Amino acid sequence: MVPHLVPRQLVQLFRWQVVCARGASVQPRTWALVSRIPSLLSPWGATGTSHLVCRSSSSTSPCAPEVVLTQERYPVTRLPFSVVSEEDLAAFERIIPGRVVTDPEVLEASNVDWLRTVRGGSKVLLRPRTSQEVAHILRYCHERNLAVNPQGGNTGMVGGSVPVFDEIILSTAQMNQVISFHSVSGTLVCQAGCVLEELSRYVEERGFVMPLDLGAKGSCHIGGNVATNAGGLRFLRYGSLHGTVLGLEVVLADGTILNCLTSLRKDNTGYDLKQLFIGSEGTLGVITAVSIQCQPKPTAVNVAFLGDGNLHLNVTSEAFSPSLLDALEPYVYEWTARQQGSVSAEHGLGFRKRGVLSYSKPPEALRLMQQLKALLDPQGILNPYKTLPAQA
Amino acid sequence: MVPHLVPRQLVQLFRWQVVCARGASVQPRTWALVSRIPSLLSPWGATGTSHLVCRSSSSTSPCAPEVVLTQERYPVTRLPFSVVSEEDLAAFERIIPGRVVTDPEVLEASNVDWLRTVRGGSKVLLRPRTSQEVAHILRYCHERNLAVNPQGGNTGMVGGSVPVFDEIILSTAQMNQVISFHSVSGTLVCQAGCVLEELSRYVEERGFVMPLDLGAKGSCHIGGNVATNAGGLRFLRYGSLHGTVLGLEVVLADGTILNCLTSLRKDNTGYDLKQLFIGSEGTLGVITAVSIQCQPKPTAVNVAFLGDGNLHLNVTSEAFSPSLLDALEPYVYEWTARQQGSVSAEHGLGFRKRGVLSYSKPPEALRLMQQLKALLDPQGILNPYKTLPAQA
Repeated sequence: MVPHLVPRQLVQLFRWQVVCARGASVQPRTWALVSRIPSLLSPWGATGTSHLVCRSSSSTSPCAPEVVLTQERYPVTRLPFSVVSEEDLAAFERIIPGRVVTDPEVLEASNVDWLRTVRGGSKVLLRPRTSQEVAHILRYCHERNLAVNPQGGNTGMVGGSVPVFDEIILSTAQMNQVISFHSVSGTLVCQAGCVLEELSRYVEERGFVMPLDLGAKGSCHIGGNVATNAGGLRFLRYGSLHGTVLGLEVVLADGTILNCLTSLRKDNTGYDLKQLFIGSEGTLGVITAVSIQCQPKPTAVNVAFLGDGNLHLNVTSEAFSPSLLDALEPYVYEWTARQQGSVSAEHGLGFRKRGVLSYSKPPEALRLMQQLKALLDPQGILNPYKTLPAQA
Repeated sequence: MVPHLVPRQLVQLFRWQVVCARGASVQPRTWALVSRIPSLLSPWGATGTSHLVCRSSSSTSPCAPEVVLTQERYPVTRLPFSVVSEEDLAAFERIIPGRVVTDPEVLEASNVDWLRTVRGGSKVLLRPRTSQEVAHILRYCHERNLAVNPQGGNTGMVGGSVPVFDEIILSTAQMNQVISFHSVSGTLVCQAGCVLEELSRYVEERGFVMPLDLGAKGSCHIGGNVATNAGGLRFLRYGSLHGTVLGLEVVLADGTILNCLTSLRKDNTGYDLKQLFIGSEGTLGVITAVSIQCQPKPTAVNVAFLGDGNLHLNVTSEAFSPSLLDALEPYVYEWTARQQGSVSAEHGLGFRKRGVLSYSKPPEALRLMQQLKALLDPQGILNPYKTLPAQA
C-alpha cells in the first residue's frame, strides 16, 4: 500500500493517533474522515485538509470520561523544576488578584486536550489580563524555577497545549481585547487571547477578512494560532502567518517584554525576531499580542476549499493499540522522510510528536534549535517536554 | 514642514544619502526622483516605490572615478581579525583552484558599491561554485579568524555588500545553477548566485512568475534578495519573502551546512530556522541555495504598480555636505520613530545605517539580535560592521 501515485509536493503527512484511554472501559468510537475534496481521496486519506469527526456508537458520553495521565502513559521523566508552594500561590494572587485558579473541576478542562489523548496534573491556572502581568508571572517563575505551560484555546492536535506534569497553566483567555484596527490598511492589533471567530466577525463588519480560518475558530486564540503557525482554509490564498503577521509582542522566559508589535508591512531593520516565535509552540516565549494584516473582503465568495497540500492519514481502530501504533508509525515516518516530506506540516510537534523531529530535520538544524531554546529559555521553563526531542 | 498628512502606515522612511567623494573634484550631479505614482507625491517624496536616477551634467563619466575608502570617511575601527597571508591564498587556491582573484582591477568593482558611496580595501575575492566549497572556505576562515564579506550582485543601497576594511569577498556569482523546478507546483530550487532576471525568464517560459521583481533584477542575485529581504514591485501581490521562500541552504560561520532546503508549502516541524536568515544581510550565515514558491503567470497584466507603502525621502545637494546631513538626519529618524515607522523598511541597514537601528527597535530587541549574532557567529567574522550597531 505504498502510495506511489502521490506527488512529492503533496506528501506532507499528518498521522492521526487514534487513542482512547488505555485499559479503560469505553464505548468504542470510530473516526470518520470528512474530506473537503472527496475527488482527491487517496488510499492514505485525502490530499485536502480534512476533518475528523468523533462518531459515537451510543447516545451517552461519546468518549471515556477518564483520560490516563500523560506521565503514566508515555515514557517521560519530570525535569527538576520546583513544585508550586502555598507561597507561590500567594505571590501569584498578588500579581493577578482573583485570577489564580486552583479548583480541580475548573483545572480538569485545562489539563486535558480536546482529543482526550493527553492529561497533565497541573494544580494551578493563571489568568493574566495584560502583558505586564504575564511578565511579572514569568519573572517570578524564572526566579523560582517553576515550569509554565502557555495555553490558548486548547484546540491543539499534538498535546502541546496542556501540561505533561504539574506545569503552571498560563491561560491567555482573559487577554481578549482588540487594541486597534486600521480601517484603510486592514491592520489589526489585538491581545493574544482573542478568539479567532470573534476577530473574524470584528474585521468582517469593517469590510475585511482574517488571513486565516480554521475549523476550531470558535475556540482557538489568535496567539495560539501564531504560536503553532496555524494554516487552515485560507493558507493558499493569503499565505503563511510568517508573511501575514506584521508584529508580535512576546514575553520571554525571564519576563522580558519583547515589543516587536509593529504594524508596518515591511520593516528591514535588523533581524526579524518575531519569526522565531511563529510556530515555536510557546517554547521560546509567550505571545501576548499580535499585529496581523487582514485582507479586503472578496467581492464574490471565491475562497475555494483548495486545501493546503497536506495529506492526512487516518487509521481506524476500536481501541488504542500500542502494537498497531508501533507497527505503523516508524514505517510512515521513514517513508515520509524518504519523500522529503514533513512529519507534521500542519499541526506542529507538541508533546506527542516531539520525538520524530529528526525524521524531517537534519542534525545541524536540531542542534541550532536546541541552541536557540537554550538562549531564549536557559532554564527550560517554557512549555517543557514539547517540540524539541528530550536531550540525551 | 512636518508632514502631518502622511498616514501612519505609510511612514516607512528611507532616507537617501546623497554623497559624492569628499574633497574630490567631481562633476556635480543631481538626483531626480522618479515616482511610479506621481499623484501620491508628498513634500517628503513619494508614497510609492521610487527610483533614483543619476543625471549627469556633462557627457563624461557621470560620477567621480575615485571613491574615498570607507575607513577614511566614516568613524569605524577595524576589529582584530587576521590579515590574509600568502599561506591563506594558497589554501584558498587548493579549495577553489583558479577562482581566487587578487587582480586589483577586478577587485575594484567588488570593493565599491554601485552608488559609489562606500569603498572597501579587500585584497582577495573568492568564487566558489558549490555549498561544499563555501563550507570549506568558511571553516578555514573561522579557524584563522579571517573576516568575510558575502557578496551577491552588489546592488545594495546601504553599503552592506562591500567590505569595510580588508574582509575577504565571498562572491556567489558562480553559484548560478537552477537545481530543480516543479512544473505543477511552481517550486523553484536554485543556487544563491542566480540572477533574478534570468530566473524570471526561466520560470516565465514555464508559465510562472517569480514572487519578486526589482529594478536591479538584471544584476541582483536571488541569495542577496533573500539576505536583504528584498520586496519590490510584487510585494503587495505575492507578499514577503518570509512567506514565499520555502527553504534555504545556509553555510554557518564555522562552515556547518544547514540544510533547510525543503520545498514544502508548509512545515511545522520545529523552529522555522530559515526565517532567521531572511533579511539578516549575511551576518548570520551565507545563503547558498534557495527554494522559492513561484506563482502562475497572471492571465492579464494586472500587476499594478501599487508600490509597497514606503516613503522615500530624497534630498538634492550639489555635493556631499556633512553639515547638511547632520542637520537633517537626526530629525528624520526621530520623527520616524515617533510615528512608529521604520528607518529602513526597504533596503536594510548594511553599513551606512547600522547605527540607527535603535530608532526602530527597543533595547530588548537589540539585545536579542546581538545574542543571536553571538550564537551563530561567535567570532563575528561574517559581514562585520554591518546591520547591528557597534558593541559598546
